Amino acid sequence: MNAVYYSGKETMTNGESQPRSPSPGEVRIKVAYCGICGTDLHIFHGKMDKRVCVPQVIGHEASGAIVELGEGVKGLSVGQKVAIMPLDWCGECPACADGHEHICHNLKFLGIDTPGAFQEYWTIPARAALPLPDSLDLKTAALVEPLAVAFHDMRLGEVQAGDFVTVMGGGPIGALIAMTAKHKGARVLVAEINEYRLRLFEKLGIEAVNPMTADVAALVKERTDGRGADVVFEVTARQEGLDAAVKLLKTRGVIVVVGIFSEAPRIDLFSFFWKELRLRGARVYERQDYEAAINALADKALPADTLISAVYPLSELARGVRELEKGGEVMKVLIKCS
Amino acid sequence: MNAVYYSGKETMTNGESQPRSPSPGEVRIKVAYCGICGTDLHIFHGKMDKRVCVPQVIGHEASGAIVELGEGVKGLSVGQKVAIMPLDWCGECPACADGHEHICHNLKFLGIDTPGAFQEYWTIPARAALPLPDSLDLKTAALVEPLAVAFHDMRLGEVQAGDFVTVMGGGPIGALIAMTAKHKGARVLVAEINEYRLRLFEKLGIEAVNPMTADVAALVKERTDGRGADVVFEVTARQEGLDAAVKLLKTRGVIVVVGIFSEAPRIDLFSFFWKELRLRGARVYERQDYEAAINALADKALPADTLISAVYPLSELARGVRELEKGGEVMKVLIKCS
Repeated sequence: MNAVYYSGKETMTNGESQPRSPSPGEVRIKVAYCGICGTDLHIFHGKMDKRVCVPQVIGHEASGAIVELGEGVKGLSVGQKVAIMPLDWCGECPACADGHEHICHNLKFLGIDTPGAFQEYWTIPARAALPLPDSLDLKTAALVEPLAVAFHDMRLGEVQAGDFVTVMGGGPIGALIAMTAKHKGARVLVAEINEYRLRLFEKLGIEAVNPMTADVAALVKERTDGRGADVVFEVTARQEGLDAAVKLLKTRGVIVVVGIFSEAPRIDLFSFFWKELRLRGARVYERQDYEAAINALADKALPADTLISAVYPLSELARGVRELEKGGEVMKVLIKCS
Repeated sequence: MNAVYYSGKETMTNGESQPRSPSPGEVRIKVAYCGICGTDLHIFHGKMDKRVCVPQVIGHEASGAIVELGEGVKGLSVGQKVAIMPLDWCGECPACADGHEHICHNLKFLGIDTPGAFQEYWTIPARAALPLPDSLDLKTAALVEPLAVAFHDMRLGEVQAGDFVTVMGGGPIGALIAMTAKHKGARVLVAEINEYRLRLFEKLGIEAVNPMTADVAALVKERTDGRGADVVFEVTARQEGLDAAVKLLKTRGVIVVVGIFSEAPRIDLFSFFWKELRLRGARVYERQDYEAAINALADKALPADTLISAVYPLSELARGVRELEKGGEVMKVLIKCS
């Protein structure tokens, strides 16, 4: 077997990849590594069956090397190591016209709306393949995608050196946001309930507390001389996380909503009025965020690879999914696809 | 009588003003006109009894002339016509330190936290008295305060010429926002249910529709070639207004929350993610907004005074409050205080 298919709610089936020669403007990748994302867990639970075409290979946090070029592809060559930015935009809608291809009205997300990376060979639009420097290994490069999320979120939150940043939720994305904020020169506090993850933050030199036992608001107040946090990243997608974010902010502070709220939470707009707070929704990344993530990993500016808690062969994708579901001593699980 | 007191839930009592000589740094104003604000109606209904000290003179949308200067007051003189910016800030808290005195952690709002303008003489901090040019009459100048709200909201929404702006709720503040957006060169659509107000917008050359009978979302789509609104001002403080605002926005559009939500509404954060929307809470104004409002009125750049639907003597404040409560053919009611 050299592919894993999502074949309906809570079912993964090992099978064969169906290699496809690249059409004009496409490339074929030999996939090296692909991380398991929270979105893959959502798909596994049947929550995205409207978008996924069962049976379908999923996966989108991938690195690999180009093995075949479609007609007319420029600037890439066979053998080139790449990270994949899994976006396919129309180029014609108002969002694309405004230069925001990542929120294209007709965006296709590779690995959700089209086949994904949990297979040996993957044929994708050439513009989704971003060259990697030789110094960056393909395992670490599987972290480019989630790290690009963090760099994108930094830009939306306009994080500056010296800012006090709070991250609600310290899973892989929260951890990368915390690292990236620290890298930008911000002071960082993470609120996370998983004890394994709390220990990991301690090792990384990032302050992290359990909101079940610590008074996060009092701590932020203490750390900021009563001012409040400049930026809060809400990564839990939970009512409690949003409520806390609103309370922690300084006047005119900003909440970047990173967690995906499938149901509409309540929001304390009175505090938005009283403190002139701001809120921004964040979705994936733009090309510049990918480039920032690639450069940061190549320069070893961030210890992102400390988040890799396990690497499994493709045949054990289901095991990786189960371990992430179970929680506990797990952060980022990578799948070695070839 | 030359003062009206709020003397407990749903009670206004005519009485005598208690003139107070200005302390150092204060001035005494002979109040000319004071508008009745939605906040005054809230106070009238007992909803702000925690802040108001019964019996208390309220009112804060005032114009007048200086009759007495306290010790050390510079830059003002007896006889000077002024508009009053009813804010008293501490100058020491983190918000003041950041230059945001209007959201001072210890802000006192004149006419709520301290005595207000529905009286003949009013003693206030000198820095709250902003000089008016001779060309601006004191009746029109009573609109400086609500117009400054609109100028502040324009800044927070970063409204640009050519933008498509939607205003949910066309009461006095919504109408001033619509006028100010038009003045900035934006295209404007107002959603309002009161037929009298809709006719007023028609006279003003501002497109306005009744959301009970018109499909506002379809109209915004049509007017913007499917793009959506650049900025939506939510002035209704209602769940329906917020929901509509989210739906009307273009990708990366911004909602400025102007209406004061006393209860937390639900918010569709999935759309904030999907379209990378932004939201900003807005509170009152800063000095530059006051100056912009004074200049715009002095230059007759905006037909703001067409919103004045009635002017009553001070003794009839209760009548003005009742008429605003009843709704119908009413927009801005001014009280002639002396």
